[in-house]
Amino acid sequence: MSQQSEFSEGDLRNTGMSLRHDREWDYELERIVDEIGEKDAEKVGLQFPEGLKRRGPKVADDIRELVDDDVTVMLSGQPCYGACDLDTYLMRRTDVFVHFGHSPMKDTDKVIYVPLFSNVDVFPIMEDALEELPGDEVGLVTTAQHMNQFEDMKAWLEERGYEVHTRRGDDRLTHEGQVLGCNYASAEVDADQVLYVGGGKFHPLGLAMEHPDKKVVIGDPVNNVVTVADTEKFLKQRYASVHKAMDAETWGVIFCTKIGQGRWEQAQEVLDDNDDAYLITMDEVTPDRLRNFDMDAFVNTGCPRITTDDGPQFHKPMLTPGEYEIAVGNEPLDELSFDTFHGTW
Amino acid sequence: MSQQSEFSEGDLRNTGMSLRHDREWDYELERIVDEIGEKDAEKVGLQFPEGLKRRGPKVADDIRELVDDDVTVMLSGQPCYGACDLDTYLMRRTDVFVHFGHSPMKDTDKVIYVPLFSNVDVFPIMEDALEELPGDEVGLVTTAQHMNQFEDMKAWLEERGYEVHTRRGDDRLTHEGQVLGCNYASAEVDADQVLYVGGGKFHPLGLAMEHPDKKVVIGDPVNNVVTVADTEKFLKQRYASVHKAMDAETWGVIFCTKIGQGRWEQAQEVLDDNDDAYLITMDEVTPDRLRNFDMDAFVNTGCPRITTDDGPQFHKPMLTPGEYEIAVGNEPLDELSFDTFHGTW
Repeated sequence: MSQQSEFSEGDLRNTGMSLRHDREWDYELERIVDEIGEKDAEKVGLQFPEGLKRRGPKVADDIRELVDDDVTVMLSGQPCYGACDLDTYLMRRTDVFVHFGHSPMKDTDKVIYVPLFSNVDVFPIMEDALEELPGDEVGLVTTAQHMNQFEDMKAWLEERGYEVHTRRGDDRLTHEGQVLGCNYASAEVDADQVLYVGGGKFHPLGLAMEHPDKKVVIGDPVNNVVTVADTEKFLKQRYASVHKAMDAETWGVIFCTKIGQGRWEQAQEVLDDNDDAYLITMDEVTPDRLRNFDMDAFVNTGCPRITTDDGPQFHKPMLTPGEYEIAVGNEPLDELSFDTFHGTW
Repeated sequence: MSQQSEFSEGDLRNTGMSLRHDREWDYELERIVDEIGEKDAEKVGLQFPEGLKRRGPKVADDIRELVDDDVTVMLSGQPCYGACDLDTYLMRRTDVFVHFGHSPMKDTDKVIYVPLFSNVDVFPIMEDALEELPGDEVGLVTTAQHMNQFEDMKAWLEERGYEVHTRRGDDRLTHEGQVLGCNYASAEVDADQVLYVGGGKFHPLGLAMEHPDKKVVIGDPVNNVVTVADTEKFLKQRYASVHKAMDAETWGVIFCTKIGQGRWEQAQEVLDDNDDAYLITMDEVTPDRLRNFDMDAFVNTGCPRITTDDGPQFHKPMLTPGEYEIAVGNEPLDELSFDTFHGTW
């Protein structure tokens, strides 16, 4: 079973990140073509996240129609799950490199970021969510794909009498109020309740884990449902993994080579702490790839969501760096927390 | 279903490329440790093919015991199927990089190649093979892992009255008489029959396809069986794929980014020939990764063995560059041949 073939309810592909076939999408053709002209580019690389990959050929066609015949357009066939996940091979070998569907994790002249904004109307589900939001103060966060409506959401809540608390997170996040699957710094606001507007359970579960003192209300305009985030099931699963790993003698420490998923210091800390820990480097972290390593447990310093969401699919316990510290007795059990990712590269 | 989780009888893992648990293996510890000392290395990268990966931690232990505490040893977690498949990320970021289990595809100071030689006795199966080898001339080829016995095999045949024809292939091959899964140039000898000594059907099937005029006798010392290579089933499967692809309107042209598997000119030729062809770049070529691309058929310019051995696992027809030419009518049906890979990088 591979990371790609089966997935939990937390999977990115359930967050409305794909496009319906009939939906129009302004992918900023003119901006791309201008850049190709300006740079006199011969090679153009296009990278789409999984849910958008089938749009690639059409985008390539549109570009080819408007540029010289000697321009070669290349589609990245690497899996892509976020702005942390640039195809650096293609980026370094093309004159113009376009990354679709995510907001920049770090600004660079080497990449054109083309966002994908949802066209779903968020206000009906916000109306439903009000029931769960007593009082007059509320935090507001959303994902990149609803970011174009963020100011309107804020104004809408203010019109209904709320003092709305928002902030920009750390430098891993482009926009005020934006959360990532691995970073909820924008929810560190002075309010006991936070409204998350967005699809799926991928983001709000991490949000609730990271901010256990707050009530996290999920207004999901994609699946048209309001829920309050509940971390109990999640915590049970994590404690089960930690317990299983307590008997481990050998540890595989994964350092992820994807540009925005490398945490070298965390990996080095585990190695320094433990003579029976072995450093394993890889880009895609999948059950298949780890099965060949004869370890009792793994620590993943790469994407936290692979550890928590895909964890049960691995043949041996897979822990976050913080969970490792608990499993080997360096930290007490009640120190278990959500693994978030800060900074860029 | 991924490339890793299910495989055909041609798969590398059936060629005896793995080591029994109890087997001793001289992996040239001293040479590695000397190099670490000479280069005053701080980072050491180790890459093993799939069947040897579980030996990694023990090798790392042995190295760590003999070098300074500040040396970090890293194991490549990337899949590895040949000398064409160096982990260039790890290679570029380590002071000493060791590639185990394959003979060099290209000599370079950046890589220490540590071969793995089989300890199986090849002569009993060669004795059995004599029945299938009338006359007094024979070609002799084998794989890297039996290379240490090549001269003895040759002498053994000569003692039995044969004139033994051998040659070194092109510069993709290190040794006289060596074949790869993608290159059989060493069998281009002046004899109507060729004895292949080695495990599995992975190599000899390609050998028989590439040299249809010769009788290819397989002496398999791993599975202890003698057979004569039969390409009929293989050809049927390939023709079936070509026929299915004849209706294709859109084509995905795969350029493999692995260091020894890139054939840029072949990819470019298809693109120049066909306006409905789209270039897709990737390292691991798997059914999962291609499923997201809405193409009618694919042309794989990377590893020929993925096309032919894993082909049926892909959701759409997957052809070699030569088969593509047939499917679109540029070449007649009887031009179908085995896709081999020449040169290095």
